[in-house]
Amino acid sequence: MSNNAPLTPESPRGSLLLVGFGPGSEEHLTHRAKWAIEHAEIIIGYRTYIDLVRPLIQNKTIIQTGMTEEIERASQAVDLAFSGKTVALVSSGDVGIYGMAGLAYEVLADRGYTGTEIDVEVIPGVTALSACASILGAPLMHDFASISLSDLLTPWEVIRKRLRAAAEADFVIALYNPKSSKRVRQIEEAREIMMEVRDHDTPVGIVKSAMREGENIVISNLSEMLTHPIGMLTTILVGNSQTRIIAGKMVTPRGYQKKYNIHTGDRLTKSKTL
Amino acid sequence: MSNNAPLTPESPRGSLLLVGFGPGSEEHLTHRAKWAIEHAEIIIGYRTYIDLVRPLIQNKTIIQTGMTEEIERASQAVDLAFSGKTVALVSSGDVGIYGMAGLAYEVLADRGYTGTEIDVEVIPGVTALSACASILGAPLMHDFASISLSDLLTPWEVIRKRLRAAAEADFVIALYNPKSSKRVRQIEEAREIMMEVRDHDTPVGIVKSAMREGENIVISNLSEMLTHPIGMLTTILVGNSQTRIIAGKMVTPRGYQKKYNIHTGDRLTKSKTL
Ligand SMILES: C[S@@+](CC[C@H](N)C(=O)[O-])C[C@H]1O[C@@H](n2cnc3c(N)ncnc32)[C@H](O)[C@@H]1O
Ligand SMILES: C[S@@+](CC[C@H](N)C(=O)[O-])C[C@H]1O[C@@H](n2cnc3c(N)ncnc32)[C@H](O)[C@@H]1O
Repeated sequence: MSNNAPLTPESPRGSLLLVGFGPGSEEHLTHRAKWAIEHAEIIIGYRTYIDLVRPLIQNKTIIQTGMTEEIERASQAVDLAFSGKTVALVSSGDVGIYGMAGLAYEVLADRGYTGTEIDVEVIPGVTALSACASILGAPLMHDFASISLSDLLTPWEVIRKRLRAAAEADFVIALYNPKSSKRVRQIEEAREIMMEVRDHDTPVGIVKSAMREGENIVISNLSEMLTHPIGMLTTILVGNSQTRIIAGKMVTPRGYQKKYNIHTGDRLTKSKTL
Repeated sequence: MSNNAPLTPESPRGSLLLVGFGPGSEEHLTHRAKWAIEHAEIIIGYRTYIDLVRPLIQNKTIIQTGMTEEIERASQAVDLAFSGKTVALVSSGDVGIYGMAGLAYEVLADRGYTGTEIDVEVIPGVTALSACASILGAPLMHDFASISLSDLLTPWEVIRKRLRAAAEADFVIALYNPKSSKRVRQIEEAREIMMEVRDHDTPVGIVKSAMREGENIVISNLSEMLTHPIGMLTTILVGNSQTRIIAGKMVTPRGYQKKYNIHTGDRLTKSKTL
């Protein structure tokens, strides 16, 4: 589905909507994302994602492709927008976080887009780390790092370096794409790196299919995390040195208790440092 | 607004809804967040946030407090929920990212909450880094770190260490709370740290009031970023070594171009490594 002739816009003016539809359920879709899916003439997405938004789609052209056909999807979306169509290219979560937005811009660059030929709008969504954190409690209240364990497009050495840096600097760590049927070693190595630096009882949240059919939630710790099922639809949140369990939830306090009495709200006296 | 007697639940059963309403405009609110704001009997929030969601609020008790009264707000919300009310405690963006969710759990712990006395639901939203990224293009397509430059509750040494670690490991970096009228030095030091490690022409996106009145967008670079206005309502996204400008947008490619021909979609031959 590539086109060797440089594309020039035809009327009517096309638009490319890059849409993140959130974790999966319609409840956690934004109003703008819903508008985009309803408004577009053509919806393009990975098969599984199309299935998630299908209830919203009526009387539209749907183009669904397999997981590895990302360049194909982005190319079709761009070329159809250049031909004057209103096209929504959909990703789960936030389309700008390990989603299709960047690749769409790369294809736009390839087609000589200068910023004027068609309208391009990126519509953000609730990304998996937000969705999973909300289910687990409040683990992301402090600085965090998001790392994808997929080494298909990124050398494993770069990922390792990021894991170590994030672990040492006490970031809460969100792991996307932790494991697939073919890629099983990465999560083991990631855990080893974190075990070298962090307490072994550091809380670890493992969320599969947040806010979708099949949702599964586990709160474990670094020692035991690999005894639980982890797969393609899982996001893992690893606590920092402050993270603890409150009433069964995973919470990273922001540090109020160091300066305030949480019970009364009063600021603690500074006598020690005066 | 603290209560020294331990609270015990009364009927009707109360609920505490911890709601992230996204960057500001109703379009980027999720359906669940809207439901929560409409459904709650009492809405509690920082004055500015209440103003943003006011169009959704009809015939409800509204409790709005100043910026520094976070413990007060969380305490009131928890205590009212324990008294049987349905209370929405609202934050902009995602309530679980530098928002009120964690503090609410800390207050719940203080009140002896065991997970059963009231219903607690965290409703995630589109966080500032997603909203700002979508306006800038697609800067977050690769691993990223989120760092708050506020040293009110976190020692500056910890923040410095995170900045250096994130810069060295080539994370895209999102800076929340970069500067206030009283806190001006942090962003200068953050830039110095990043300048030591990254190319000085690394793209930097500076977004004020994303998707709200007063929205302002600048794409600059590490050398020049401080010549642009930065304040309390700004989020800054610093590119990694791959980030570049495509048609006026900030894009961090995911690495497809190393393995595929973006124009044809074909996988590049591996002849070199064979
Ligand atoms: C290609 S990435 C897409 C991320 C997506 N654009 C986002 O912002 O959430 C796929 C990975 O996202 C995570 N993910 C996406 N949706 C999820 C969900 N509903 N529950 C848990 N993890 C999810 C998993 O880690 C999965 O391996
Ligand atoms: C206390 S934090 C709240 C973050 C919020 N819970 C979120 O998830 O976006 C306040 C900081 O968030 C960022 N922020 C919040 N809303 C924003 C918006 N609409 N545009 C740009 N930055 C925003 C700014 O960096 C600001 O200093």
